[in-house]
Amino acid sequence: MTLPLGFRYASIYARIRKVKKDDLALIVSDTTAHAAATFTTNLVQAAPVRLARKHLRTSRGTLRAILVNAGNANCATRTGDAVALETCQALAAHLGVPLDQILPASTGVIGVEMDARKIVRALPGLVRRLSEDRFQDVAEAILTTDLVPKTSFAEISVHGGSVRIAGMTKGSGMIHPRMATTLGFLMTDAAIAPSFLKPMLAAVTELSYNRLTVDGDTSTNDMLLLAANGASGLTLDPESREGFQQALTHVAQDLASQIAKDGEGARKRITIQVSGARTDQDAAQIARAIANSPLVKTAIAGSDANWGRILSAAGYSGATFNPSRVDIALQGMLVCHEGLAAAFSEATLKKQLDAPECFIQFRISGKGTGSARFWSCDLTEGYIRINASYRT
Amino acid sequence: MTLPLGFRYASIYARIRKVKKDDLALIVSDTTAHAAATFTTNLVQAAPVRLARKHLRTSRGTLRAILVNAGNANCATRTGDAVALETCQALAAHLGVPLDQILPASTGVIGVEMDARKIVRALPGLVRRLSEDRFQDVAEAILTTDLVPKTSFAEISVHGGSVRIAGMTKGSGMIHPRMATTLGFLMTDAAIAPSFLKPMLAAVTELSYNRLTVDGDTSTNDMLLLAANGASGLTLDPESREGFQQALTHVAQDLASQIAKDGEGARKRITIQVSGARTDQDAAQIARAIANSPLVKTAIAGSDANWGRILSAAGYSGATFNPSRVDIALQGMLVCHEGLAAAFSEATLKKQLDAPECFIQFRISGKGTGSARFWSCDLTEGYIRINASYRT
Repeated sequence: MTLPLGFRYASIYARIRKVKKDDLALIVSDTTAHAAATFTTNLVQAAPVRLARKHLRTSRGTLRAILVNAGNANCATRTGDAVALETCQALAAHLGVPLDQILPASTGVIGVEMDARKIVRALPGLVRRLSEDRFQDVAEAILTTDLVPKTSFAEISVHGGSVRIAGMTKGSGMIHPRMATTLGFLMTDAAIAPSFLKPMLAAVTELSYNRLTVDGDTSTNDMLLLAANGASGLTLDPESREGFQQALTHVAQDLASQIAKDGEGARKRITIQVSGARTDQDAAQIARAIANSPLVKTAIAGSDANWGRILSAAGYSGATFNPSRVDIALQGMLVCHEGLAAAFSEATLKKQLDAPECFIQFRISGKGTGSARFWSCDLTEGYIRINASYRT
Repeated sequence: MTLPLGFRYASIYARIRKVKKDDLALIVSDTTAHAAATFTTNLVQAAPVRLARKHLRTSRGTLRAILVNAGNANCATRTGDAVALETCQALAAHLGVPLDQILPASTGVIGVEMDARKIVRALPGLVRRLSEDRFQDVAEAILTTDLVPKTSFAEISVHGGSVRIAGMTKGSGMIHPRMATTLGFLMTDAAIAPSFLKPMLAAVTELSYNRLTVDGDTSTNDMLLLAANGASGLTLDPESREGFQQALTHVAQDLASQIAKDGEGARKRITIQVSGARTDQDAAQIARAIANSPLVKTAIAGSDANWGRILSAAGYSGATFNPSRVDIALQGMLVCHEGLAAAFSEATLKKQLDAPECFIQFRISGKGTGSARFWSCDLTEGYIRINASYRT
């Protein structure tokens, strides 16, 4: 798979995190890219989120570089705004690009002052390393409690040739599906008019990052970014747009579901498919409640076919449906038929639920056509261990 | 402390749960009591919830007996409605009281058929045991994963003498604060006009059971009941009403906070006090988000003063406030001042957070006068262990 043309990547260890592992990363577009982003809806927003939002506004949705650090969220700190600004200014000088074409992003602990000098000092080395083939290095440098890097790629035929999408993301805890969750960067070498970028990203986010939960906690630093630099020389015409958006949705869903798989302490990814609801909205609401229920998540951890908890979670989701029209299947095996226990082999199903992938189907029979897919993970002792001593 | 006059209690083992421990209980009022109840808002409602609601309606808010079983929720079962009706009918015949003055309640596993014969067979023995001093037996018989029984009492001076309140409750998991959570029974020997019972219970619930969370899961079987039989011979006059309601609120808050303390796997009770919000509503919203955050709950489990997670949870609560006006104190020690890290001794605070009671104060400075108190508990490996194999 070829990466999108015209992007370069670099990472370096800037001593922001305690363990020696690259913690500062850079993505550069060789030419000005059109960009759109969705940000956390948390009222408490990290300094880099505020600055990135401002830069996107003043640059009218264009960018040249993304500067990311892991290990410190630069949130709820005295010097946060100054640190974000100063590091972007230093990078702008190094690259010779306008300040507002640089987007900062941070992830890590909240409430600890970040030392701008660590980043400024590391910038020359970081810029020197820029290379078209260090995509994977960046995908690793932006991780925090994640166990594995998360990337996804696509190549799409459009009028006149083909364009490419590459996406990377991080996230494992503080994951809740009401906005772009955690950090995600989507690059493409297609040229896309700014007026299409925003609605396209919104539609893609709704079907991917907004359909994901690990623990129901919404971060202060979330950002999902889409950058289109046109380096392919090809512009998305109206006919190509739908195919491109489908491929982009697929990449974003792939990334979101990788976050679920790598959820803090998770041993199993849970995919929830709701169908037959009144509307897609209703289906998503039901799926979200099931995905967030700690009782469902612990039952799956124990390979326990406790469908009553799934039905109960749907019941308090706020969506309206008739419980006596509900079928629930686990790993394809019917466990609840028309709201009542179905006959199934506990022993067989228990073995199937030991698999690393768990599939919950929640079907409402009748005329409804609303459906939604959601990603979550099981809740294990590992989540507790990781989060009981994150700061110390 | 004297119990309310004119109530009798009994419990027995009816072989509903596997372990031999009383699982069927009865509360009888010797004369007809006025009653009000709040029920779960879950769309999926257990058969006894539906029947209790109907009985309260047709009896015009009067009752003679409450029949409770633990070990089976009688929810999402083929025979649920018939079982609830048949057992109430059998008890009505035994006691010689109208059917609709009997309220059924069930708690336990969802989706498993309940055998009415087990209950009907046990009724003669249960009725024989009725006694004024078996209150504690009933408080024990209604428990499921609870470790300790939960009771609370009050005696209030009113015009002409004194009246008594006795409350009991159960609950440890599937606890979420948007309604009467779990089962709770409040008895008083005051005579209270039916027109006051309902609004009084609603007001009390809002400040007690609706301010409680263990895991954010809302049960299908929740019910909080208030029964006033007037056996004291004293009627609440308008002057006494406020004092009585305060005492009742205190009893209900005591019970709710006991549920938090006995939350599944909990080692610590967390009390959250929010002040300075725009309205009490806003304060409750902030407190609820903090109380529900698994990241806050795991940090407390690890005695980690991670105030960033508390601020972040408040930030996504939906309430509006200025983060730079927020002070946060843990165990009375200031950890966040005006939205930024305060200077405090990590070592000292860590030791203080090892205590079984954790107190989080979230204060917004300014003109706001909204405040709320909320109860939660830490999230530990124990919660996972209990819930990974509840059914099997």
